[in-house]
Amino acid sequence: MHKVIYDTDPGVDDAMALLFLHRHPEIDLIGITTVFGNASVETTTRNALFLKREWEIPAPVAKGASVTIDAARAEREWPAMVHGDNGLGNIEVPHTIDLPLDPRPAHRFIIDTVRANPGEVRLVAVGRMTNLAMALKEDPQIAGLVKDVVVMGGNFYVPGNVSPVAEANIHGDPEAADIVMTAPWKVVVIGLDVTSITTMSRSYLGAMAARGDAAVKLLDGLSQHYIDFYSHAVEDGMMVHDSCAAVYVVAPALFTTITGAVRVVCGGIADGQTVIKPDGRRFPPGDWDGLPSQIVATGIESQRVIDLIRDTMLRA
Amino acid sequence: MHKVIYDTDPGVDDAMALLFLHRHPEIDLIGITTVFGNASVETTTRNALFLKREWEIPAPVAKGASVTIDAARAEREWPAMVHGDNGLGNIEVPHTIDLPLDPRPAHRFIIDTVRANPGEVRLVAVGRMTNLAMALKEDPQIAGLVKDVVVMGGNFYVPGNVSPVAEANIHGDPEAADIVMTAPWKVVVIGLDVTSITTMSRSYLGAMAARGDAAVKLLDGLSQHYIDFYSHAVEDGMMVHDSCAAVYVVAPALFTTITGAVRVVCGGIADGQTVIKPDGRRFPPGDWDGLPSQIVATGIESQRVIDLIRDTMLRA
Repeated sequence: MHKVIYDTDPGVDDAMALLFLHRHPEIDLIGITTVFGNASVETTTRNALFLKREWEIPAPVAKGASVTIDAARAEREWPAMVHGDNGLGNIEVPHTIDLPLDPRPAHRFIIDTVRANPGEVRLVAVGRMTNLAMALKEDPQIAGLVKDVVVMGGNFYVPGNVSPVAEANIHGDPEAADIVMTAPWKVVVIGLDVTSITTMSRSYLGAMAARGDAAVKLLDGLSQHYIDFYSHAVEDGMMVHDSCAAVYVVAPALFTTITGAVRVVCGGIADGQTVIKPDGRRFPPGDWDGLPSQIVATGIESQRVIDLIRDTMLRA
Repeated sequence: MHKVIYDTDPGVDDAMALLFLHRHPEIDLIGITTVFGNASVETTTRNALFLKREWEIPAPVAKGASVTIDAARAEREWPAMVHGDNGLGNIEVPHTIDLPLDPRPAHRFIIDTVRANPGEVRLVAVGRMTNLAMALKEDPQIAGLVKDVVVMGGNFYVPGNVSPVAEANIHGDPEAADIVMTAPWKVVVIGLDVTSITTMSRSYLGAMAARGDAAVKLLDGLSQHYIDFYSHAVEDGMMVHDSCAAVYVVAPALFTTITGAVRVVCGGIADGQTVIKPDGRRFPPGDWDGLPSQIVATGIESQRVIDLIRDTMLRA
């Protein structure tokens, strides 16, 4: 069993990945930590509690960061055009959910849980990397105690989605992402190179919902606004960004990867860009030297990933 | 006939492109301007004069910039391991060449020549963009009088060669390159995406030299050190970077291209990176807005390019 802490900002594609992590028989979802990003952390936390209640997920929810790790960074507007004003595609969601939060802030929850399960925890982080960076700052030794960190974020040999070079999760807190990528733990980066070509059509999702239970029907409903948004880039479907990271946990063979040190550009026109120095490539001395070699996905078997998501959703 | 000014820092692959430009029957090489880069501008200018003499090239040589356009940038060592201490693969080159230089600095030569041939001049720039940027600063109106600018430099969807994100020509003077890419003239960027996969083997070059005249034999001789250097990346051969730009002048159909605004990152860990905002891709408002759409090569018919170089060299 893979013990997973899911660090998330639900978020529509976050919701799909959450249901996948909850339902996959080889995954033990031991915690959900929230972060700002697709909406405010108040909204993403409320959404996590809503989905926990609707989907009867036992994992505790711990509320995380509300702003970037460098407080000097200007705040940005929430991407309501993507995820809706409420972060869940503008479906009906109660203003508050009557479920308890874990009393600890997310980064403390991560530290405690990692220390209680040394060598076992897989962090699946699909929002800003702020909680993970805060956990590392407060307790750097957890880097050696985590099994790995699977990140949805970044782009390497394809354009970004919030600037020509940057992807939203990384661009939303570049300093935090640079801390996470360069820490002495194993990071797997699932970026736009693979997630932007992994799309689920509206009809595929609809057919899944027709066969599935109320949980899948809820997922289908909250995804409609997101699919509408993606009409500029996807033929009546959605990129399943966060689910790709969740799938990696159990099916890494569906991905092709390269390895190398990864840095994040902080500031300037390339702000938030992820850059790998591929292992074995020669360059003059530079900013990637001496850093841990991480794993970056450059290829994916998209249809098999989509089918695995469906098959997992339908095991209710 | 294509009227070409060749802005260059010979340089081994520069020398091949020079001979191509000189020998191609549809190209009228009307000027050679030199710049620092593969060696000091004193050395690259001496080399241009040496090749002009050896190859009986009528075009005048004008000496250009010796440092970056932003004088505050730190100077770097010359890449002697690539091009040899003398910039021409350490073959015997006289210390001085008894041929006159054009009396004007390179950027002034460019301005005057463009103004004397309005709408006709194609600038083929294969070194630092410093001379072109200086010409634009001194006389911005030339942007509307140049036919186009074909640049060897940059990288878009492949790694760089002097850092994980930067190519040597652009990295050598990022501010100059950003001026050139964003000016209101037509720029064609021939970068590592295509030049790094366009290689000529030592044996192919040798066979060409065996059939060719003294000029081709000289080219073969001065290329040996460069081929040795490339042993880490090429199987006994060389990337013909600069010749790809020269070939584009007469055979653009051998390239596939995309269009979009291009910026160059100045400063930080991505210093010298070229970034395109592909036309038609949607992003939030940003640093690429309102800039001219340029042409960026993303594909190349490498073998046909190599064969065209050979066939041109052998028309003596």
